[in-house]
Amino acid sequence: MTGKNFFGGIFTGAVTYELIHKDKFSQARAGILHTPHGDFLTPIFMPVGTQATVKTLSPEELEQLGAGIILSNTYHLFLRPGAELIKKAGGLHKFMNWSKGILTDSGGFQVFSLGELRKISEDGVTFRSHIDGAKKFLSPEVSVEVQKNLGSDIMMAFDECIPYPADYDYAKKSTERTHRWAERSLAAAKSSLTQGIFGICQGGMYEDLRMESAKVIGTMDFDGCAIGGLSVGEPKDLMYKMMEISVQYLPENKARYFMGLGTPQDLMECVGRGVDMFDCVFPTRVARNGMAMVSPKTSPRGRLVMKNSEFTEDFSPIENNCDCYACKNNFTRAYIRHLVRTDEIFGLRLLTLHNLRYLQKFMSDMRNAILEDRFKDFRADFFSDENL
Amino acid sequence: MTGKNFFGGIFTGAVTYELIHKDKFSQARAGILHTPHGDFLTPIFMPVGTQATVKTLSPEELEQLGAGIILSNTYHLFLRPGAELIKKAGGLHKFMNWSKGILTDSGGFQVFSLGELRKISEDGVTFRSHIDGAKKFLSPEVSVEVQKNLGSDIMMAFDECIPYPADYDYAKKSTERTHRWAERSLAAAKSSLTQGIFGICQGGMYEDLRMESAKVIGTMDFDGCAIGGLSVGEPKDLMYKMMEISVQYLPENKARYFMGLGTPQDLMECVGRGVDMFDCVFPTRVARNGMAMVSPKTSPRGRLVMKNSEFTEDFSPIENNCDCYACKNNFTRAYIRHLVRTDEIFGLRLLTLHNLRYLQKFMSDMRNAILEDRFKDFRADFFSDENL
Repeated sequence: MTGKNFFGGIFTGAVTYELIHKDKFSQARAGILHTPHGDFLTPIFMPVGTQATVKTLSPEELEQLGAGIILSNTYHLFLRPGAELIKKAGGLHKFMNWSKGILTDSGGFQVFSLGELRKISEDGVTFRSHIDGAKKFLSPEVSVEVQKNLGSDIMMAFDECIPYPADYDYAKKSTERTHRWAERSLAAAKSSLTQGIFGICQGGMYEDLRMESAKVIGTMDFDGCAIGGLSVGEPKDLMYKMMEISVQYLPENKARYFMGLGTPQDLMECVGRGVDMFDCVFPTRVARNGMAMVSPKTSPRGRLVMKNSEFTEDFSPIENNCDCYACKNNFTRAYIRHLVRTDEIFGLRLLTLHNLRYLQKFMSDMRNAILEDRFKDFRADFFSDENL
Repeated sequence: MTGKNFFGGIFTGAVTYELIHKDKFSQARAGILHTPHGDFLTPIFMPVGTQATVKTLSPEELEQLGAGIILSNTYHLFLRPGAELIKKAGGLHKFMNWSKGILTDSGGFQVFSLGELRKISEDGVTFRSHIDGAKKFLSPEVSVEVQKNLGSDIMMAFDECIPYPADYDYAKKSTERTHRWAERSLAAAKSSLTQGIFGICQGGMYEDLRMESAKVIGTMDFDGCAIGGLSVGEPKDLMYKMMEISVQYLPENKARYFMGLGTPQDLMECVGRGVDMFDCVFPTRVARNGMAMVSPKTSPRGRLVMKNSEFTEDFSPIENNCDCYACKNNFTRAYIRHLVRTDEIFGLRLLTLHNLRYLQKFMSDMRNAILEDRFKDFRADFFSDENL
């Protein structure tokens, strides 16, 4: 694709979502996301490459394990090395040697996480860098400008991620401002024919605000819609409920993206309710903490803590039927345990490769189940272990 | 090769050295080291894989950059995960998935570096683990037993690395004990048809002891001879002098191995005096400190400190004619600088790949120069920059 995509015969911008099949017995859907750097099957999980690298991995390894789009962070790249530098390098794809899709967040989430270090106004957010304390400013216009310099396939609108808990009045005012910022983000992005932009709906933990926000963002001229402000510390039930409401009011012809979600269980629940895209540091972060993600059939809790003594003389791979680099080449649990215990980087690489491949395979299995209208069985089978 | 090698028609064990050509105008020599896991061209540099992994790299990457033999550390593997475990795993090659050569040191150097934590007797060395303080014992017999469990291609005799400075009397007594330990190491190793063993000559910084030790070790039934106890803090001139004496009295039909040496300058000086084998953590350690090794023509001191601001907008590879993974795929200096500044593991990988490839290429260039009797020109050209 070269920045021009057609959906149902109507020109809709650089990024479009094509619905392929809806599961007959759930809201789960299989689709294709068309982007300037390739077409990607959904539901999709996007590995996180915060600093223009998915931690520990090479671009080839990422591609080999099946990654299609990665997420990179505007906030971090804005501070280091700076978006102008990356523009000079030929854009983020070229800077980091990644030829497939890149989605950049808007920096909103990170900036709002700074707490005392930031100040919000209608115009945008003034904050101090967590690195050197330098005063910085992000707004819808600045964020989009930065993302244009990065040259990502999918830009994200600048929003406020409402903390949990937040009172109704704050959540309402913040959500309304996010809507105004969405309009400004869209206006700033419009000139691009080679980058798409997604809006982000908010609404805190209030049903009417969630509904309203999904409607407002869903009717704007975005190329996709993200559900923001969830997985911020609220109970799971509440998260699923808010997500369900949001999805319900989002348009069917655009991709739906749940930001910052991560465990297989969560992905399954959201896909079953009609979400298409995910990103999370979970698989890569737990890998660096020495944890392997496995099927609940391999281990009831779906994870192996590799440094545990039970693996001392375990010469089997992390998971028997896994086709990841580590398992396929029979790097054993005993060897990986040794590497983790001795703080060897290669151990973190093996676990990162395994975990990301595990999730890619999981997404692709879900997609196949959707295409064959057996998502409910797939889900029931996955959750069959009551220890999960 | 399958553990049986012939040299000049006489069976000499699992590992043999074949002299191919001696440079006409220096002592430099090109040869082939025959081992159970392949034949390797000398002079050779062996990357260090202390904990059964060359830090940050996969076995495939090591092979692709041209590594033939790697060194692994008996002391470290003895403590963690334990040599019996590695034996159960099928040996070190299988444990770490490395199909080419492995040389294991004897643990002597590490044990003697423990200082207060160890006690030497004629029998061996009692020491406390640097990890948990557990009391351990290494002797010629134990060290060889451990190395047999590891299954390395080349085992090393157990020796004492004499500290610098050391008085004559201490150096003499220690060297004589090293000789007795060499006999015991050899006796313990003899039953193996699939592993070779190298002796290590010592002698401190005393000419007569160096000469004597080289003669004694050189006439024992070892498959190769190492020069130990150098590069321990003494001035360069003294190191070269002691090395020269040692080499002079070592047999021509066995490989000569200078333990723990590492910079291109040092390798060049030793090769020019007839040394064949080297190992050092230098290229991998400085990589993890953000340093790239380059030709003196690229940078007078032969190194680039990648975090320096001069590379901020430098979109060229580390070195223009380098065929390492990083340079070949045009990971730019600017990108690597960014990765180093943000403590990203992929930056350490790229620099490790580059530095090891740089050294492999350097060794292979030296070998070609030797084969064509132009080693002296090669050396003069390398040292032409007076800032070096």
